[in-house]
Amino acid sequence: MSGEPTPKKMKHSYVHNRENFTKVYETLRDELLNDECLSPANSPQAKAAQEWFKEVNDYNVPGGKLNRGMAVYDVLASIKGADALSEEEIFKSNALGWCIEWLQAFFLVADDIMDGSITRRGQPCWYKQPKVGMIACNDYILLECCIYSILKRHFRGHPAYAQLMDLFHETTFQTSHGQLLDLTTAPIGSVDLSKYTEDNYLRIVTYKTAYYSFYLPVACGLVLAGITDPAAFDLAKNICVEMGQYFQIQDDYLDCYGDPEVIGKIGTDIEDNKCSWLVCTALTIASEEQKEVIKANYGHKEATNVAAIKALYVELGIEQRFKDYEAASYAKLESTISEQTLLPKEVFTSLLAKIYKRKK
Amino acid sequence: MSGEPTPKKMKHSYVHNRENFTKVYETLRDELLNDECLSPANSPQAKAAQEWFKEVNDYNVPGGKLNRGMAVYDVLASIKGADALSEEEIFKSNALGWCIEWLQAFFLVADDIMDGSITRRGQPCWYKQPKVGMIACNDYILLECCIYSILKRHFRGHPAYAQLMDLFHETTFQTSHGQLLDLTTAPIGSVDLSKYTEDNYLRIVTYKTAYYSFYLPVACGLVLAGITDPAAFDLAKNICVEMGQYFQIQDDYLDCYGDPEVIGKIGTDIEDNKCSWLVCTALTIASEEQKEVIKANYGHKEATNVAAIKALYVELGIEQRFKDYEAASYAKLESTISEQTLLPKEVFTSLLAKIYKRKK
Repeated sequence: MSGEPTPKKMKHSYVHNRENFTKVYETLRDELLNDECLSPANSPQAKAAQEWFKEVNDYNVPGGKLNRGMAVYDVLASIKGADALSEEEIFKSNALGWCIEWLQAFFLVADDIMDGSITRRGQPCWYKQPKVGMIACNDYILLECCIYSILKRHFRGHPAYAQLMDLFHETTFQTSHGQLLDLTTAPIGSVDLSKYTEDNYLRIVTYKTAYYSFYLPVACGLVLAGITDPAAFDLAKNICVEMGQYFQIQDDYLDCYGDPEVIGKIGTDIEDNKCSWLVCTALTIASEEQKEVIKANYGHKEATNVAAIKALYVELGIEQRFKDYEAASYAKLESTISEQTLLPKEVFTSLLAKIYKRKK
Repeated sequence: MSGEPTPKKMKHSYVHNRENFTKVYETLRDELLNDECLSPANSPQAKAAQEWFKEVNDYNVPGGKLNRGMAVYDVLASIKGADALSEEEIFKSNALGWCIEWLQAFFLVADDIMDGSITRRGQPCWYKQPKVGMIACNDYILLECCIYSILKRHFRGHPAYAQLMDLFHETTFQTSHGQLLDLTTAPIGSVDLSKYTEDNYLRIVTYKTAYYSFYLPVACGLVLAGITDPAAFDLAKNICVEMGQYFQIQDDYLDCYGDPEVIGKIGTDIEDNKCSWLVCTALTIASEEQKEVIKANYGHKEATNVAAIKALYVELGIEQRFKDYEAASYAKLESTISEQTLLPKEVFTSLLAKIYKRKK
């Protein structure tokens, strides 16, 4: 027993990066292919279904930025210390992280059908594949089923098993409610700018994006860390909703002012009539005359219309308004985070550092 | 305290009929409209979303035959005795019954989009409503969310809360797997009759229909009755899968041989190229020549093609084959039910009586 390593070093040599996180995806995906809810793949028919199911997962789940999924481990490590985590805790945090990525895949496949989108993550949208089409309506149901199959396989005996299921159910309900708010505020093909208010904007963003992108990963981390105080979850919810709003507002800002080379796409929110923070803010300060410019030009594909909107944004100082909002939101988050004593500050600051003044 | 009623009579005066069952729907629907996952309806935007959500539910959930939903109470009453049930047990069995109806509504809205169907339950399919269209893709996500919101509200403290969630998750996975088997065996627009085998047929039917239509209501009833023996659930699964296959085969039979006045529609399985029990059975006994008749005529809209298939069914004695199958399946179910000792026979015989030799 010479050269016995210290217990700390024995625990694990895990490095939390995209590559190691993705290895967990493959494990989970392979387990899913043999799920007991599916017919055993011993007939050509069942084998074909299994292959289809594999492709649905591989095409839609692992190709994103993975920020949401990887955050669960970060939150857990912020609370318990990275070195104190066992192999099992690391795996479980990443499995929950992948459940969030599965949830996102489920929503993105559905959203792309509803929006009639063409590409997603640099490839054709799943439903746009010639062999897929409306079968995608069933495929996103299957993607959602994967979440609960993973939870059952890996958390069935966990004291918070029911709480985790509740959390994913609630987040799903909130996100689809956000999608409904969005669809009814800005119906495709008809636009009523009087609905593009900051109040409506924030409600959409909170439900459609903030809960699943920020609160869900943090709440998963808290559950794994064994935190049960409802006040800690409420605090996390408040901070995460504020952070999620900030994140989406940045997204809207970058769509217009970001470098296409860096963000990887050319923004088309103006052409697409999107209920963006920029147009909502412009409408709150525009004169009647300027509102007419928005009405006449917003939501049109022509370069002259887009230029008219961008010129108006300059006239109204929208870019500076964003910078003021960003500074104020950051200051508010910083003070809330440092004033609270329920959770290590790093739970939130590590998330915030990843998005503050991001360029993509 | 004169004329004191017997305790038995005091318990409840509930009559299990469609009207009383539907009252429970209204209670649950009203609770859902104020779900904590949704934004409070104190803004015009949130109010509009709430109204949409109400309409999604009212249009799609309560209008079916309600056999599946009402069966949960029947199963519970078969085990515990109708007179022994408390108001709360009755309500809970009906709430679970409605969860099954919500699950069905969720799948039917999705299936109608995928199949390009026009009408459902005598009204236009939800997605066919001019104002709805592809928003229906989000609406069926919301319908599914209702299941878990109801479970949380009414079963959060129940010892089987996690088990009930597992049951609905598993059934959802099985049903969408069945839909995938169906979509890949008989893709819309292209048909490969070599895939129309009895083995493939039974696999589709088991996953797509039997689990949610028969096993799920029975399993919900067993859970409410406090049954925990896994052998009882396995037994119920075997009997319910057999019953579900029988039910779907009847459905296929009635599509061709039922009285349109009685079944409420004119069957079009032949025209629609459906993987029906009739064509699968015909293909197992047809000569090469007769197979050519099927290939040439199945899946065509013209009356002469349909007539050619129906004439071939007569030639092959398909109707008699169905009657033989029906008698054999009934005998098998009867003997399985009477030989088992784990559950009261009435759990299954009450279900079977409702479907045996049904005309609609």
